[in-house]
Amino acid sequence: MAEDKRKKLSLIVFSGDMDRLFAAFSLAAGAAASGMDVVMFFTFWGLRALKKKTSTGRSLFGRLLGWFYGGDIERASPSRMRFGGIGRWMFKRMMKAKRVPSLAELRQTAIDLGVKMHGCQMSMSVMEIPQDALIDEVSACVGVAYFLEQAQESDVTLFI
Amino acid sequence: MAEDKRKKLSLIVFSGDMDRLFAAFSLAAGAAASGMDVVMFFTFWGLRALKKKTSTGRSLFGRLLGWFYGGDIERASPSRMRFGGIGRWMFKRMMKAKRVPSLAELRQTAIDLGVKMHGCQMSMSVMEIPQDALIDEVSACVGVAYFLEQAQESDVTLFI
Amino acid sequence: MAEDKRKKLSLIVFSGDMDRLFAAFSLAAGAAASGMDVVMFFTFWGLRALKKKTSTGRSLFGRLLGWFYGGDIERASPSRMRFGGIGRWMFKRMMKAKRVPSLAELRQTAIDLGVKMHGCQMSMSVMEIPQDALIDEVSACVGVAYFLEQAQESDVTLFI
Repeated sequence: MAEDKRKKLSLIVFSGDMDRLFAAFSLAAGAAASGMDVVMFFTFWGLRALKKKTSTGRSLFGRLLGWFYGGDIERASPSRMRFGGIGRWMFKRMMKAKRVPSLAELRQTAIDLGVKMHGCQMSMSVMEIPQDALIDEVSACVGVAYFLEQAQESDVTLFI
Repeated sequence: MAEDKRKKLSLIVFSGDMDRLFAAFSLAAGAAASGMDVVMFFTFWGLRALKKKTSTGRSLFGRLLGWFYGGDIERASPSRMRFGGIGRWMFKRMMKAKRVPSLAELRQTAIDLGVKMHGCQMSMSVMEIPQDALIDEVSACVGVAYFLEQAQESDVTLFI
Repeated sequence: MAEDKRKKLSLIVFSGDMDRLFAAFSLAAGAAASGMDVVMFFTFWGLRALKKKTSTGRSLFGRLLGWFYGGDIERASPSRMRFGGIGRWMFKRMMKAKRVPSLAELRQTAIDLGVKMHGCQMSMSVMEIPQDALIDEVSACVGVAYFLEQAQESDVTLFI
């Protein structure tokens, strides 16, 4: 009977690096396409992947974050070979040449396939990112307890 | 009957970055608070989170590690926006302003809730960190085999 | 009856950093030695760990990757304390002094113990790494769907 249950994948997306986000959304979209339930939790730097616009906090730190880590998913840089933005441009060009979808396209595919996306409340508070700075498809912003519940029901859980 | 068993969370804490340690201890404390068994394994840079004092190895490499990666959990810097120590100071200030507990407080909460903490023997040997440089609450320093046993019994296992 | 089944460990190796690769191969070899089935998937920077020779792509990006991230497993640097290559040299020296096996030796041990190793097809395409640049022991280059299948059957799955 347990075999009838759909398999489930949970991802904590901590990183906001282009390459790690790419891995996260590829796994999420691939899993959803093969019939798994997928839940993603975005925390800290990973919240960039859910932003629909540049938001800047009010405190000095919030403003600094806006300057040095502002922008949405299109502004994510690879974790290696950044070269002051050139790495991002090269990776995008390369992926296009190989007909690999962009991060924003992969995210949309994941959403269309029913992947649930949540922001981490505590990081949003510390980093001064309001809910309305996130894309409308974000299901709800949740805490650690909610994530742990989901993870316990999951067959695979990854920290990215 | 299997349903009666307490759920279990295992974490390998490889990173010594402030933000990743924050994620690790939040998950550990949150899981323990909700009734899960929690085991944490600290390896490589993550060992910083267990240090009670600055220890310096005897070899050239050990001394270099002491200079460039010395200090305890309070000295952990965020993985992004380090700015030569300013990032750490800003994050701490920001967390305080939002009434978020500090890393050392979160670690103490985890300990009080019964989270087991282990150091990785091999990393301690390579990095020349003696057992007596770690906080007294460290249960025992163990090897890969012990971790794998715990992970097999766990419902959720993460590499942070 | 379920107890008769061998336990299984799946690893996604995303990082090509010396220290994270060391953690990955230690876990893999340790798990295989204790009788677990082990499958490793190497993606993005992690593909370096499977390279048998320096390969350089044809496009500008492929050539840049070759220059800045060329070389095989022996060229992997630690994630912290790189110091322009000195960190790698120091870690290697330190590990030798403590009689810890090198990365290449650990990889061979894992192979000898039956660990299965796969490259990620999409990363190999984007990064212009041909199959014949990888060591012969690579079982096959696979996609996300294959990995997800393996992960669903696994008792422990980690993203490194």
